[in-house]
Amino acid sequence: MAVMTEQQYRESLAKLHPRAYILGEKVDNVYEHPLISHMLNSVARTYALANDPEGKEYLVTKSDLIDEEVTRFVKFYTSVDDLLAKIKMLKFLAQRIGGCYMRCTGMDAMSAAGVEIYRCDQKYGTEYFERFKKFVTMVQQHDYAVFSGVTDVKGDRSLRPAQQKDPDMYLHIVDRDSKGITVRGAKIHQTGSLLTQWGIVIPARNMTEEDKDYAVCFAFPSDAENIIHVYGRGTLEARSMDGCDLGNQRFGKFAPMVIFQDLFVPWENVFLAGEYEYAGPMVINFGNYHRHSHGGCKCGVGDVLIGAAALAADYNGLPKTSHINAKIVEMLKTTMAIYGCSVAASVESTKTESGIYAVDPVLSNTSKLYEGKELHEVIRNMIEIAGGMVADIPSDKDFANPEIGPLLTKYLVGVDGVSTEDRVRLFRLIEKLAFESRDIVSNIHGAGSPETHKMTVLRNVNLNNMKKLAKNLAGIEDK
Amino acid sequence: MAVMTEQQYRESLAKLHPRAYILGEKVDNVYEHPLISHMLNSVARTYALANDPEGKEYLVTKSDLIDEEVTRFVKFYTSVDDLLAKIKMLKFLAQRIGGCYMRCTGMDAMSAAGVEIYRCDQKYGTEYFERFKKFVTMVQQHDYAVFSGVTDVKGDRSLRPAQQKDPDMYLHIVDRDSKGITVRGAKIHQTGSLLTQWGIVIPARNMTEEDKDYAVCFAFPSDAENIIHVYGRGTLEARSMDGCDLGNQRFGKFAPMVIFQDLFVPWENVFLAGEYEYAGPMVINFGNYHRHSHGGCKCGVGDVLIGAAALAADYNGLPKTSHINAKIVEMLKTTMAIYGCSVAASVESTKTESGIYAVDPVLSNTSKLYEGKELHEVIRNMIEIAGGMVADIPSDKDFANPEIGPLLTKYLVGVDGVSTEDRVRLFRLIEKLAFESRDIVSNIHGAGSPETHKMTVLRNVNLNNMKKLAKNLAGIEDK
Amino acid sequence: MAVMTEQQYRESLAKLHPRAYILGEKVDNVYEHPLISHMLNSVARTYALANDPEGKEYLVTKSDLIDEEVTRFVKFYTSVDDLLAKIKMLKFLAQRIGGCYMRCTGMDAMSAAGVEIYRCDQKYGTEYFERFKKFVTMVQQHDYAVFSGVTDVKGDRSLRPAQQKDPDMYLHIVDRDSKGITVRGAKIHQTGSLLTQWGIVIPARNMTEEDKDYAVCFAFPSDAENIIHVYGRGTLEARSMDGCDLGNQRFGKFAPMVIFQDLFVPWENVFLAGEYEYAGPMVINFGNYHRHSHGGCKCGVGDVLIGAAALAADYNGLPKTSHINAKIVEMLKTTMAIYGCSVAASVESTKTESGIYAVDPVLSNTSKLYEGKELHEVIRNMIEIAGGMVADIPSDKDFANPEIGPLLTKYLVGVDGVSTEDRVRLFRLIEKLAFESRDIVSNIHGAGSPETHKMTVLRNVNLNNMKKLAKNLAGIEDK
Amino acid sequence: MAVMTEQQYRESLAKLHPRAYILGEKVDNVYEHPLISHMLNSVARTYALANDPEGKEYLVTKSDLIDEEVTRFVKFYTSVDDLLAKIKMLKFLAQRIGGCYMRCTGMDAMSAAGVEIYRCDQKYGTEYFERFKKFVTMVQQHDYAVFSGVTDVKGDRSLRPAQQKDPDMYLHIVDRDSKGITVRGAKIHQTGSLLTQWGIVIPARNMTEEDKDYAVCFAFPSDAENIIHVYGRGTLEARSMDGCDLGNQRFGKFAPMVIFQDLFVPWENVFLAGEYEYAGPMVINFGNYHRHSHGGCKCGVGDVLIGAAALAADYNGLPKTSHINAKIVEMLKTTMAIYGCSVAASVESTKTESGIYAVDPVLSNTSKLYEGKELHEVIRNMIEIAGGMVADIPSDKDFANPEIGPLLTKYLVGVDGVSTEDRVRLFRLIEKLAFESRDIVSNIHGAGSPETHKMTVLRNVNLNNMKKLAKNLAGIEDK
Repeated sequence: MAVMTEQQYRESLAKLHPRAYILGEKVDNVYEHPLISHMLNSVARTYALANDPEGKEYLVTKSDLIDEEVTRFVKFYTSVDDLLAKIKMLKFLAQRIGGCYMRCTGMDAMSAAGVEIYRCDQKYGTEYFERFKKFVTMVQQHDYAVFSGVTDVKGDRSLRPAQQKDPDMYLHIVDRDSKGITVRGAKIHQTGSLLTQWGIVIPARNMTEEDKDYAVCFAFPSDAENIIHVYGRGTLEARSMDGCDLGNQRFGKFAPMVIFQDLFVPWENVFLAGEYEYAGPMVINFGNYHRHSHGGCKCGVGDVLIGAAALAADYNGLPKTSHINAKIVEMLKTTMAIYGCSVAASVESTKTESGIYAVDPVLSNTSKLYEGKELHEVIRNMIEIAGGMVADIPSDKDFANPEIGPLLTKYLVGVDGVSTEDRVRLFRLIEKLAFESRDIVSNIHGAGSPETHKMTVLRNVNLNNMKKLAKNLAGIEDK
Repeated sequence: MAVMTEQQYRESLAKLHPRAYILGEKVDNVYEHPLISHMLNSVARTYALANDPEGKEYLVTKSDLIDEEVTRFVKFYTSVDDLLAKIKMLKFLAQRIGGCYMRCTGMDAMSAAGVEIYRCDQKYGTEYFERFKKFVTMVQQHDYAVFSGVTDVKGDRSLRPAQQKDPDMYLHIVDRDSKGITVRGAKIHQTGSLLTQWGIVIPARNMTEEDKDYAVCFAFPSDAENIIHVYGRGTLEARSMDGCDLGNQRFGKFAPMVIFQDLFVPWENVFLAGEYEYAGPMVINFGNYHRHSHGGCKCGVGDVLIGAAALAADYNGLPKTSHINAKIVEMLKTTMAIYGCSVAASVESTKTESGIYAVDPVLSNTSKLYEGKELHEVIRNMIEIAGGMVADIPSDKDFANPEIGPLLTKYLVGVDGVSTEDRVRLFRLIEKLAFESRDIVSNIHGAGSPETHKMTVLRNVNLNNMKKLAKNLAGIEDK
Repeated sequence: MAVMTEQQYRESLAKLHPRAYILGEKVDNVYEHPLISHMLNSVARTYALANDPEGKEYLVTKSDLIDEEVTRFVKFYTSVDDLLAKIKMLKFLAQRIGGCYMRCTGMDAMSAAGVEIYRCDQKYGTEYFERFKKFVTMVQQHDYAVFSGVTDVKGDRSLRPAQQKDPDMYLHIVDRDSKGITVRGAKIHQTGSLLTQWGIVIPARNMTEEDKDYAVCFAFPSDAENIIHVYGRGTLEARSMDGCDLGNQRFGKFAPMVIFQDLFVPWENVFLAGEYEYAGPMVINFGNYHRHSHGGCKCGVGDVLIGAAALAADYNGLPKTSHINAKIVEMLKTTMAIYGCSVAASVESTKTESGIYAVDPVLSNTSKLYEGKELHEVIRNMIEIAGGMVADIPSDKDFANPEIGPLLTKYLVGVDGVSTEDRVRLFRLIEKLAFESRDIVSNIHGAGSPETHKMTVLRNVNLNNMKKLAKNLAGIEDK
Repeated sequence: MAVMTEQQYRESLAKLHPRAYILGEKVDNVYEHPLISHMLNSVARTYALANDPEGKEYLVTKSDLIDEEVTRFVKFYTSVDDLLAKIKMLKFLAQRIGGCYMRCTGMDAMSAAGVEIYRCDQKYGTEYFERFKKFVTMVQQHDYAVFSGVTDVKGDRSLRPAQQKDPDMYLHIVDRDSKGITVRGAKIHQTGSLLTQWGIVIPARNMTEEDKDYAVCFAFPSDAENIIHVYGRGTLEARSMDGCDLGNQRFGKFAPMVIFQDLFVPWENVFLAGEYEYAGPMVINFGNYHRHSHGGCKCGVGDVLIGAAALAADYNGLPKTSHINAKIVEMLKTTMAIYGCSVAASVESTKTESGIYAVDPVLSNTSKLYEGKELHEVIRNMIEIAGGMVADIPSDKDFANPEIGPLLTKYLVGVDGVSTEDRVRLFRLIEKLAFESRDIVSNIHGAGSPETHKMTVLRNVNLNNMKKLAKNLAGIEDK
């Protein structure tokens, strides 16, 4: 079976030597760095759970490509059930990790690219899809972790790629020859890039003919020499550096900026190179799939948010309080809309020419709209239920201090029967869930920003048909 | 095929002589009364569409009971697909009728009662389920329209049925003998009761042993002599009475109060009589199914609301205006949550002992929560987009007056190319959609009130499991 | 004292013969028409309360112009206290009338016009302000009711007045000579126009040089021969026509369309005629004042909405229920924001050159934004608290029917100690408050539409200063 | 003039030796500690601005007690204007500091305690008010910074103070003799406690006779030997410790837990000691005043949030974008409600027996309700406008690294004409504004939690009067 164990995954990474900078320093063994290791645990956990009896039900399926069992993270979506199973898998994992485990970026990029590459081949007689299947086959055989580079740095956002003062504001082809292409640019918010063996780049927006060198899709090893990963700061790093007051005890997230310093990519790994009309649809597909993914994982995180809030009420001595119950229902109302719209987007998915299924864009984007706005209110409700102590708990180091530790243990106790230590652990978790910038910003801007989701909804809904329904009922002749 | 045509349905009704009062008067031929005929058109339309090629796809399926084609309105839900098909059917119909067509109350009551009756038989050796199947078989053979009496008048809402000062505040058995039972009470908000051949009564709440005479489920002919239908006033009646300024040109809604004046019910039509522990679950089932139904029909009405708003923008000369597009997305965000959660409630339905499928209660109630609150804002957005003219358009009679008609036609025109007449028709439709009290109140209180939905969500969600997820991530040992 | 009694007001109206059409018929004695008389009661109530000891405190003040006591409805705002007193007066009246009493349109128009007329005189040496003071003096001496014609019919809303296909889509000067001007056009939503002795027209938007004939402000007698009032239909007319099931027992609202059929206006009543740069500011002033007025009256109506909801909870047997209390606080949260922002807009008002005070535009428009959106949710909360019976109560005529009346009285009772009759009266009031189209649409579109309020906020807030604050804290040099 | 300069304030602090623990270590010179010094700058800034011509207008007034100029921070509220001036001062300061400067806690505690102490003296013949005036006089003469200890640690929140397993869960008198009282307990969230010369303790809740030892109010020197300040961790500490990536360049916040280790308080500093019926009203007063204060300062911070968002749009190349403008109006809508309701709470304040003015509780608590919920959405809107880069910007240390610094400068540029450095500074500020836990949690829980505000609104609003208004309009006789 082509499913790695956690151990195999960790060993596979240990052989790599990505070029990485963290807080101003070049770091050689990134996998042991405290700012990296927590998210490494997250990804490793997906490998562990694929080998666990309960988890296997969610994660593992059969691949047509290699006729072996693989995890859903490395497989095209080829049925409604695949898309439903994805949502359930992501929810299952997020409930157990409490945040991001990165692997859906590569998974979503595969199907998103596959759909358009196939269309490109149909139109232009290119052979990208065959190449791409070979790449996916290789990934399946090794059960690699793959990240996806989508978001360019963008420069002046009112300008198209080719209009920018510096042409490198979007990743583009700077050279091409018989062996391959050379690309330059930078992708930001590259969640977990350092925890993968491979990356897939897809364009970040639609492109016109002028932008055709920006219409590029390819795969590359994450530790290629001309790839630089620069760690981006989050809000709660001091905790990891101090090794205490963590919140989520094992898992975390980071999202580097990845710079492509004239990276050479051989043709076998190039899946689009100039056919600009497929750039837009490819990233739109990616967006739709990835918003659909959020429908699963953020609902799973939502379960943790709600559980933490309900537990805090217990620990404060306020179980079954009417206003707290009302808030919990409000929280569920949002997480269920996120989840329900993603499930429905699976049910109403359609088969594309390539055999890959496309989710319903209106429903998947609506799911993300609830995440982008109302999930922030879910978090606020968690803080409101938990109480002010989320703001300013003394450190574990204070508890360890013999002069004040006993006083803190005495004074920070809650309801009888729960230790101060457990109560503080819970409040630390809530602090982490409420204030880890990379998670919160991902709720809003992950998989594109809310305005993108709104635009996608508007473009995919049949307003004319709705107008006809209204005319018909009003007795207006439809000319 | 056991599917009536519209003509057959109208003829079937014409034979009935229900006892009906409208605005203080006993009315003999209710079907031609202007306050009744518009909703008669709505129900008749469902018969017409069942015989239309496109509509048939949505409405008609095969029945195991009679081994013939029937409409979904008279069939138990016996699969996930049945539940998904129901949602799509109701959406399809609501898009074409622009409001309520009544038939889902009977449909939802059938499966809701069926699930519990079966359990009752299992426990007590009663034979209700067989009787019930006979009743349903008869309904299918004749393709009858069936309404469902659920909501009692309730008196003092803080008291249980048996505690009320007047014992008739909830419908109950006042006598029983070898031939049947005699019941007394009143059910309100009985949408379209006068347009049916039969009704099914189910209890409106959970019951204790003291309340056991209130734990009663039975079927009865809608025109039985001891049944009185009293029309309840809505907001826009003057229009129907005047025969102009209608808004929705053909369709409407009414919801009588139905009084059971010591109605005798033979045992063959009695499906629960005293087994009080099934009263609560039966109405909970009904609520869950009916909230699920709203997920379809109110999304369909939502399409009309959105279409009408978008058309008003066109007619005002403001197509593709940025703030109007933003509002349309907000409207869709709500209708998609209503629809998506109902679809997901179908996908996550479970099979009960009787073979009937139960929808997921958390998702179906969440759908209704969006209807109960956010759909009101959808309507407000429609009014906001349309503009102030929703408030106070002169009458068609003014347009017909030769002195001022031409002036009104001149002054109430909008964008070039659209006649004043069409513009006014559209604004009348919007007025109807925004201010028909029975529709708006149904959004909020139909299928139970929001607090009931919240309670149902809270009772069906596994908070303990969520607390465990939080504990696990916080490193708190789960004792 | 120049304050009429109710009787004097009614007698004053009785002498007038406005040209009015209602539901297609020309009506001679409009004041006794059932669709008019309820709002006549509203306006008459303001006269009565001005003569009542408690009401006098709110309504009556001293006028500098005539050195006598007058009501605030006919006086310029010449201090912060005037503006604060206005809010309190409007709240006081709305609490007692439960809706619109029309007189603030004229009051707001007076100060709105006064500010700009004064500026026009300063720049162009015109003598509009003196004329205007004479007009206002005359109004004060007679204590007339004055309405204000602002909203034109507008035609294609994407076009300016002079660009419209039909030049009459905005009211304009079609002729001028030594004696005066002749105007043509139509103003809609003219709340209570038939209940006044005079009207004031001000332009509905900003104007450019091309539109200069549309830049016109004047006063005219409401019953002038060339003025036609056409009644616009509302939702609940059948009740007034039937004389039962009223809701609000005495008071109501209507809002005709007023057509100016080449009306001649003598120069003494013309206060702007072509000086187009004052058209925009004048209507902006009016909007700001009128949104400020809504801060008072809609908060007063809000008190009725909240009181009705709380009373319904009592009558249903659910006093002091936790979720109902939570909803009542939500309702108050909105009405207090509406009121608080209007109070603050008074406190932060500024004196203009004319001596008239201008309210703070950001705060007054913010107040209206809460009315335009959140007040709709207040109404929904009222319906939610009251319950489904808002939708479909049988008629008083049914209660009067000897066959079913006793049954209705029996079955529609609520908590012990409250008569069914009182309970029904309350639900009728709630129905009226929830579904009277002219009130609800006024919440949204009255005093301009929400997008206008947003634009006004944006134009009046000093974003550059806020950017500087941010720069300063971020350590960015402000170049 | 009794107003210290910044220099004098810093020197005054330098003489103190409070007992402080930070991250597990006892710290001797807290004022230079990087986790303390930023908030020290905030408080020092208030002293500086009191000596600045513009700031003086807002901060300085005349004191009746010492017949000298003092800042408003050390003065009772003795008029409507005092309360209006307070709001404007706090807004002015928050705009310039971008967060908390602590001094309103002491100011609000003074008036809150004063009102009740006076009443206590009236009833019991105690002499607390005279003592208190002496204390306030001394504070004014020295222009001390004073904090206020309100929030106890609370233990099991369902239990009253005297019911707790450990009696020290609320601060209480453990001993009293002729010289004074001895108190024990712990107050949490003691914003800026280490930056003051004095503290005032008031009870955290209402008390019954059993709790009378908990009904205690007194003043104490912040560096008293038996006072321990324990620093509570916030989210962004690493930045201060690293001395880079700060966001707000100069200012910050911290909120220790303060432990009273059997502190002796001489009678001259005791202002309540057992008169339990004044405990509740005192903290209710404090709450009302402090929610009123938030109406000023959080509106000032709101201006920074809005300015930062608008500037980010500029820097991203998206000025004047329609959807961004719409979001900015939404942000203003909330900050204006916060501000407007506080202004109105001043206008509607009432004079108490002591001469101190009490704010309107409904309006001041409504203001805080908008802060507690909607301000969180203002922050989300800021993040949404700014974009994903808020999540994960590389460190200043990365920019300083010669290998990658130039690449970062190249790739993280925005619109032409703005340096990457300025853009990064702005995003750091936004990160700080969005994710500083102590600020965000203060929005929600500062001055009491939202449920407290709701309860206060409900208790102070006259629902019975509103019910009467509804009855009157419905024609229901009010018995």
